[in-house]
Amino acid sequence: MKITLSQKSFHTGNFNSNTQKIIESIQLAKSGGSDLIVFAELATCGYPARDFLEFHDFILLAQNSIDEIAQHCTGIAAIVGSPSINPVVHGKDLFNSAYFIEDGKVQKIVHKTLLPNYDIFDEYRYFEPNTHFEIIHYKGFRIALTICEDLWNINDNPMYVKTPMAELIHQNPDFVINIAASPYSTTQIQTRQTVLKNNARKYQLPVFYVNHVGAQTHLIFDGGSCAIDANGNVFDELQYFNEDQKTYKINEGDKGIDLVNSISTLTGIRNKYADIESALTLGIKQYFDKLGFKKAILGLSGGIDSAVVLYLASKALGSENIWAVMLPSQYSSDHSIDDSLLLAARLGIRQNIISIEDTFNTLTETLKPYFNETPFGLTEENMQSRSRALILMALANKFGYILLNTSNKSELAVGYGTLYGDMCGGLSIIGDLYKTEIYELSKHINKKDEIIPVNIINKEPSAELRPEQKDSDSLPPYEVLDKILYHYIEETMGIQQIVNMGFEPALVKRILKMVNTSEWKRWQAPPVLRVSQKAFGPGRRVPISGKYLS
Amino acid sequence: MKITLSQKSFHTGNFNSNTQKIIESIQLAKSGGSDLIVFAELATCGYPARDFLEFHDFILLAQNSIDEIAQHCTGIAAIVGSPSINPVVHGKDLFNSAYFIEDGKVQKIVHKTLLPNYDIFDEYRYFEPNTHFEIIHYKGFRIALTICEDLWNINDNPMYVKTPMAELIHQNPDFVINIAASPYSTTQIQTRQTVLKNNARKYQLPVFYVNHVGAQTHLIFDGGSCAIDANGNVFDELQYFNEDQKTYKINEGDKGIDLVNSISTLTGIRNKYADIESALTLGIKQYFDKLGFKKAILGLSGGIDSAVVLYLASKALGSENIWAVMLPSQYSSDHSIDDSLLLAARLGIRQNIISIEDTFNTLTETLKPYFNETPFGLTEENMQSRSRALILMALANKFGYILLNTSNKSELAVGYGTLYGDMCGGLSIIGDLYKTEIYELSKHINKKDEIIPVNIINKEPSAELRPEQKDSDSLPPYEVLDKILYHYIEETMGIQQIVNMGFEPALVKRILKMVNTSEWKRWQAPPVLRVSQKAFGPGRRVPISGKYLS
Repeated sequence: MKITLSQKSFHTGNFNSNTQKIIESIQLAKSGGSDLIVFAELATCGYPARDFLEFHDFILLAQNSIDEIAQHCTGIAAIVGSPSINPVVHGKDLFNSAYFIEDGKVQKIVHKTLLPNYDIFDEYRYFEPNTHFEIIHYKGFRIALTICEDLWNINDNPMYVKTPMAELIHQNPDFVINIAASPYSTTQIQTRQTVLKNNARKYQLPVFYVNHVGAQTHLIFDGGSCAIDANGNVFDELQYFNEDQKTYKINEGDKGIDLVNSISTLTGIRNKYADIESALTLGIKQYFDKLGFKKAILGLSGGIDSAVVLYLASKALGSENIWAVMLPSQYSSDHSIDDSLLLAARLGIRQNIISIEDTFNTLTETLKPYFNETPFGLTEENMQSRSRALILMALANKFGYILLNTSNKSELAVGYGTLYGDMCGGLSIIGDLYKTEIYELSKHINKKDEIIPVNIINKEPSAELRPEQKDSDSLPPYEVLDKILYHYIEETMGIQQIVNMGFEPALVKRILKMVNTSEWKRWQAPPVLRVSQKAFGPGRRVPISGKYLS
Repeated sequence: MKITLSQKSFHTGNFNSNTQKIIESIQLAKSGGSDLIVFAELATCGYPARDFLEFHDFILLAQNSIDEIAQHCTGIAAIVGSPSINPVVHGKDLFNSAYFIEDGKVQKIVHKTLLPNYDIFDEYRYFEPNTHFEIIHYKGFRIALTICEDLWNINDNPMYVKTPMAELIHQNPDFVINIAASPYSTTQIQTRQTVLKNNARKYQLPVFYVNHVGAQTHLIFDGGSCAIDANGNVFDELQYFNEDQKTYKINEGDKGIDLVNSISTLTGIRNKYADIESALTLGIKQYFDKLGFKKAILGLSGGIDSAVVLYLASKALGSENIWAVMLPSQYSSDHSIDDSLLLAARLGIRQNIISIEDTFNTLTETLKPYFNETPFGLTEENMQSRSRALILMALANKFGYILLNTSNKSELAVGYGTLYGDMCGGLSIIGDLYKTEIYELSKHINKKDEIIPVNIINKEPSAELRPEQKDSDSLPPYEVLDKILYHYIEETMGIQQIVNMGFEPALVKRILKMVNTSEWKRWQAPPVLRVSQKAFGPGRRVPISGKYLS
């Protein structure tokens, strides 16, 4: 039997576009002689559809998509992810389902059993878990059809009481299909393949896996659909960060897999920063495409963060669609402008220099009767940052640009940024990368040619909001800060655990307190392109007015 | 047996304070001869603790609290809500539990079965559902101990497959205890009592109910703990929007309830706007208390929204802690200033007039080389709004105030507001009230005396960002707009359903599109004090870059 894995980029709620894409893929597979084509989880409506799923109209549109798709499933069967309505009065109103369609009709609907409800996942918000297990019979094969998390209950501390494959295996399946919506993170590609391999090995069955590719605001899907053989080895992968469609042949006797009309694209060991670059570029591109925008504006400070964002944006949207604005004040250094000009020139990007001095001085004058003789301080720093944002937003509004945010994860974590100032923007590009990771990414970007001026990489980080300011005036060195933050944010360690890793108790306490007391700022931060296992945003939900380590 | 219901305001993560409050309440009840004191769900750690629950250190602190509390449970038993660790390797790591403590020791731990995971609730993110049902024996009584949602599976479309009381009733309990964390909304007080009454009636048992009171950022708990008799009638209520503690006697024979040393406070029919006023006042007060702030600043426009917020803030924090700033531009009308001055004078609030004209003119000058001869438009309107925010934030930062946001739900819904402008603020006070509700609230506030000048209530709403501007230039009348919004947001109706309610198809389409295309703004809005069944914020999770009705 020939099985086609179809890895596509879907658009949440855009049923017309998604349905057409699915139908075209079916026709292509059919013309190549495929018997079965497999699409990702919730392909009709996109993932995550979030609370759109609470609108009955939205669910009906998904059902219409399935009906339309079914008409094209003659001479080929399809497995398509889509929500279905729970016919039982008890329990949630929906299932997260895989439709098995053949002969122009839905033949079977398999529901997801394990509903991820952690980090960025909220599936139990919408769906009732499946409790009924039955394999699919098709062309002499017995197929164990599972949905994403259904295969993930095999680690040492399993999150669920039930394991779907442990039920399905009793029905002697010939192979496993898993349709998924598994977003990218720097560790996810390996973790995911390990899970799939472990399933193949445990049940001695080939596994065919289809994931989403593309980005839905903050969430980036890398794809990486694949075929795993019954020994738990990766037989072949589809492309990462791109749409792809490939067909395999599974042999009736030995359950061996063959490639049909294509070349294996096994990628082997991956490069962390190459993947991050691909992920962020895809994230930017699809954010703009899906919102119907083309042009991005950003403030170029002369520092590493805005330099990296400029590079990524120009890669995603084309240099001609980017506008870099330098907004110097009396506290800006000359090298900031020179370095920024050099970078913009190298990338062929429009740049302008707009001083904020007049705005800042007028504000100072306006506020003088109230501020009196109070000393220059954080307030005046914030005023500069907010003046910049105001000018950038004015240019964005006037000419139809979206402002890109350039905050990094280290500063977002400790609240080292100005709300309504440098924290502005429609999308945070590098808000899930610690400062030390941004340096690594910039080195990766410069690997072939120097794109980001080395001076930008080598200079000491500074917000340049008062004379001679350095980040290190208020923060420990980033090599130390980022490690403490990682232990706390990604690993949810407590103070003593982090101290045991070799850090000063007073410093650890101070940093954790900074993180927990700046939650109010992050609540109003733009969506952050997620590349780590624990990004700020909907995957990390922390009280603002709580009192814990604060 | 004498049962004390202890309705307290807890602070998320503030274990010291919560534990002391619980111990003091136990001592008070004990001195009054009570046999059993009951506290709310997750009382030790506060509700909602959100992702703090993912920190093992946080859970250990909750366990320490229980240990400390247990030492005070001699001569009296206590039921205290707190997380517990799941000893089984399969399933989530925690339970949401009720500790039954007697004789200085934890005697039994009952786990929550039904984990709400909709709207603002995320309990399946953290907790494993209970599957084991056992009543508690104490002083000759058999107690069915349940946790909040455990009693809520009795409507026509029950959300869960299991119903805990249907299991417990087989063990012949004498009465039901329900410890809860049920936040306020305008419909919740009645809904909640109906659920409790229906349980009492169905199982013919008295129900003792203890809820939280207080506010955790966006969520307000009204309290309303109560005793329901076995016929399903409310025997007595504790205070709403205040801490309270009352003791009842339950008779061994007929399961009748008596009051002990206190007077019944049955409130009967409630006034919607009196409750909203109490809720919002409590929400403001506790936001400031819990963050350790005292002083609030806000921009007073001369419109109804900022007027109502000013009144609520002065009630919550005291007039002496509020600073009202008028920020007129060339487009502001004289009556806006006069009306604002009158209101501030009536409330005894410090006010200042700070013109934004210089700032706006300087910005216009700075941007002239780029804007060229483009006409005055939305950009220039946004620039004014953002200039105001910049000045307000500067004053807030300089003098330790928190800026209060004055956006209403109607404008938040359709995106009729400026991000980083009038959408700024630490907390949105009336962002869950439609404009028409704000008029009703202002009339309620003026019921005894005219506090809010009638001119503010009667004038036509205007943002005053260009000459002769009126809200009705861009929006339908609020009486129409708010109804359409309510059908869509609160009732999740589709276009056709709303049209069937008697609205113009083109208008309905336009409004729903405005709602869905302004999600990017709301993502960066401040937390909104929740008073409806569906508030913007963590209870409504909608894609930004989706394409649904947009």
